Amino acid sequence: MQNGPMRSGQYFNPMAELKWSPAERAIARKAYEAALHKELQSTIRDAKQRMARISTASDLWKLEDWLGKRRRQIDDKYDYRYSVLPTVLARLIHEGWLPETDLNGLGADKLLMVRSYVETMRSFDAER
Amino acid sequence: MQNGPMRSGQYFNPMAELKWSPAERAIARKAYEAALHKELQSTIRDAKQRMARISTASDLWKLEDWLGKRRRQIDDKYDYRYSVLPTVLARLIHEGWLPETDLNGLGADKLLMVRSYVETMRSFDAER
Repeated sequence: MQNGPMRSGQYFNPMAELKWSPAERAIARKAYEAALHKELQSTIRDAKQRMARISTASDLWKLEDWLGKRRRQIDDKYDYRYSVLPTVLARLIHEGWLPETDLNGLGADKLLMVRSYVETMRSFDAER
Repeated sequence: MQNGPMRSGQYFNPMAELKWSPAERAIARKAYEAALHKELQSTIRDAKQRMARISTASDLWKLEDWLGKRRRQIDDKYDYRYSVLPTVLARLIHEGWLPETDLNGLGADKLLMVRSYVETMRSFDAER
């Protein structure tokens, strides 16, 4: 079955089927950038508090490790491709960086998808 | 010439010929540890000053890079093997982390070697 619509190694990604209007793209981009700014500012505040408590070299190298980890986490998380954007926005809502109201103006198809991913993330958390 | 005293890949290392008495080892170890402590405390103070000036994420990641670089520099520099210790001590004197008087009590063979390396480092600096 090499030529069917579900070839080996592929799977159906409903996010990739969404059509984003220019107005929706502007709303999504603005919400995404605001969340990124918020998370970065929070990381800076956190880093300053951690630095203030440091008295040994071992503490300092732990802070370096922590900074590297935060940098990789943020780099990984903030992925603006439209084919994954609904899960990215859902995660930002779930983690508290993005107020859901910042997405006002997106079509119902996008909002429903984002909300369903947020619900899935919440139920995963509740099971832990 | 595969079996002579200067086989291919080897070279004569005068530092490896030194004999360190227990008293000399104690003096060298104490001086080395004091220099390491001084350099680490200075790095912590420097890091705190750099952190205090940070306002953007780009600054924060620059600080992370700087911390990683300092950690590697310090790891590379502080090598307590006796076969390299005179150059290590010379470098610490040259960079201001180790007062030469901390080496009082070492034999003249070690002190002469350390001083000659310090002189070499100074003359390299002067040529730049």
